Amino acid sequence: MRNIESVTYNGEKIILLDQTKLPLEEVYLEIDSVKDVWDAIVQLKVRGAPAIGIAAAYGVALGASQLKEDDYESFAAKYEEISAYLASSRPTAVNLFWALNRMKNTLVANKEQPVAEIKQILLNEADAIKKDDAEICKSIGEHGLTLLKDGMTLLTHCNAGGIATAKYGTALAPIYLAKEKNMDIRVFADETRPLLQGARLTTWELMQADIDVTLITDSMAAIVMQQGKVDAVIVGCDRIAANGDTANKIGTYGLAVLAQKHNIPFYVASPLSTIDMETETGADIPIEERSAEEITCGFGNQTAPNGVKVFNPAFDVTPNDLITAIITEKGIISAPYSESLKNLF
Amino acid sequence: MRNIESVTYNGEKIILLDQTKLPLEEVYLEIDSVKDVWDAIVQLKVRGAPAIGIAAAYGVALGASQLKEDDYESFAAKYEEISAYLASSRPTAVNLFWALNRMKNTLVANKEQPVAEIKQILLNEADAIKKDDAEICKSIGEHGLTLLKDGMTLLTHCNAGGIATAKYGTALAPIYLAKEKNMDIRVFADETRPLLQGARLTTWELMQADIDVTLITDSMAAIVMQQGKVDAVIVGCDRIAANGDTANKIGTYGLAVLAQKHNIPFYVASPLSTIDMETETGADIPIEERSAEEITCGFGNQTAPNGVKVFNPAFDVTPNDLITAIITEKGIISAPYSESLKNLF
Repeated sequence: MRNIESVTYNGEKIILLDQTKLPLEEVYLEIDSVKDVWDAIVQLKVRGAPAIGIAAAYGVALGASQLKEDDYESFAAKYEEISAYLASSRPTAVNLFWALNRMKNTLVANKEQPVAEIKQILLNEADAIKKDDAEICKSIGEHGLTLLKDGMTLLTHCNAGGIATAKYGTALAPIYLAKEKNMDIRVFADETRPLLQGARLTTWELMQADIDVTLITDSMAAIVMQQGKVDAVIVGCDRIAANGDTANKIGTYGLAVLAQKHNIPFYVASPLSTIDMETETGADIPIEERSAEEITCGFGNQTAPNGVKVFNPAFDVTPNDLITAIITEKGIISAPYSESLKNLF
Repeated sequence: MRNIESVTYNGEKIILLDQTKLPLEEVYLEIDSVKDVWDAIVQLKVRGAPAIGIAAAYGVALGASQLKEDDYESFAAKYEEISAYLASSRPTAVNLFWALNRMKNTLVANKEQPVAEIKQILLNEADAIKKDDAEICKSIGEHGLTLLKDGMTLLTHCNAGGIATAKYGTALAPIYLAKEKNMDIRVFADETRPLLQGARLTTWELMQADIDVTLITDSMAAIVMQQGKVDAVIVGCDRIAANGDTANKIGTYGLAVLAQKHNIPFYVASPLSTIDMETETGADIPIEERSAEEITCGFGNQTAPNGVKVFNPAFDVTPNDLITAIITEKGIISAPYSESLKNLF
């Protein structure tokens, strides 16, 4: 199985797999400025909540390493600017804030160290965030694997795969671990309009791992469930509220409704870092709206009239009662989520 | 309100709105040969079952008007050739055969007339087919209008609009009639992957009529319903079975499930000609599967990996229990459909 790394640091530059170029080209960007990290996040060259967190951690560490200030106070002040700038790149993904916060704590905890030392400590911390993420994903995969049986077909949405994380992914982790055990798991991948992460990324990375994947449009999830072709739905998430309400890529909520209608289990794979106990319910999760062009000028040609009104929410919120279980690195939890989530922490 | 006619006859030529050029260009083809009518149907320049029937009727009448033969027997023999040729343009389109059959009956019924007279009668019959379709659509609209209230927002899928018929369309007919009465009706149009009829055609024709339309991806129907933005769903259909099960563009079934979940009425607009009492249930409706490229190369560029496996059903079947009402030119019917449909005929 080919191991694809979407974010690495080579000691000088951040190496990012440009996910906007997939699936036709596998291009790695060499990034050596904070501005380019910010751009890469905004332009979705790096995407997936954990991968964004890792990129932001490396980004802030890289930016800090380039600062001229050598007294802690002015260094920390500049550091804050970089961190706030990176935090402004995307509003919904909590991992971004989580990673920047962990980096900030590392900075503060080492304030007595010489600035040169702190710079290295920050880079090490970004490495640690990445390593932790790979371990977390593997753990999610191991727990998720207990829900799978040989011969099952899963349906997934968007891309919560290896390239969205340090390794293995979240929603796809159980599938990769099943593959490592030679289990026969098949996957339906929703194309995931407007940005086609399913068509471009999920199919690509599953095909790299020689996993049987079938591409469908989002509007075909209903018919494959109706025809009895799907044994479970498994998705990643962008933020889980304290009551279990889950924000994920637009289209997820509709899938959860369809899964309920067809008595198909609906699983959310999530690292603890994506669970936001400060957010009480899904109603408190801000939903990013993105530009009309993502819909009207999808991929090469304009496909809607000039000036057409467009609504383009990037995420939706699936209420906790539609979620059969949440798969975390600490185990699988189920309703009532207000209690089971609290017990996790 | 601008009145768009997708098929007209100006006394010499057939004028066809080239739907493949929409929404960026509004091009009308002037057609004066049977071959060009055939090409227009094959190349989907004219689409929508009723519009295809009307184009074929004008096509056979135009071809007949150009014949040199002036005795009935040789005229009728040449007529048969033209009719058979046009019938070969889209071998599965029922309205095509229905319209050509009606034209043939007109020919035979007037065999005692001079050929010059028959030529005019055939052109009149094509006019009549078009006029009948416009009346049917208007009737569907009038019945459908009784379900609408000022200020409502409807969601529709694919294109069952004026350009697919002589005028008004089926699913969009109540919306046009509401507009004529200055009612404030807003519309969400699903883009309708893979072929984007919603993005390309429905938004365009509603904008021409100055109706407030918002384009969304198919995967956003769930969130707009969840947010209480949709008062009813209205769609056209390709075939209704004797028990009310309804085949329509892929994605319709999922919408019906979502509408049920959100207690939103789900309406199907259908001329009687689309109700097939010979088909007992939806299980007996064959579902056409189309080419992978519609999904993998849908926007001008390839958006999925080379060789990816694809499932591309063109239609799905919505079970009768998810359909609040069927709007026909003879009135609105509801469950139990096995009875109410039988009573219609």
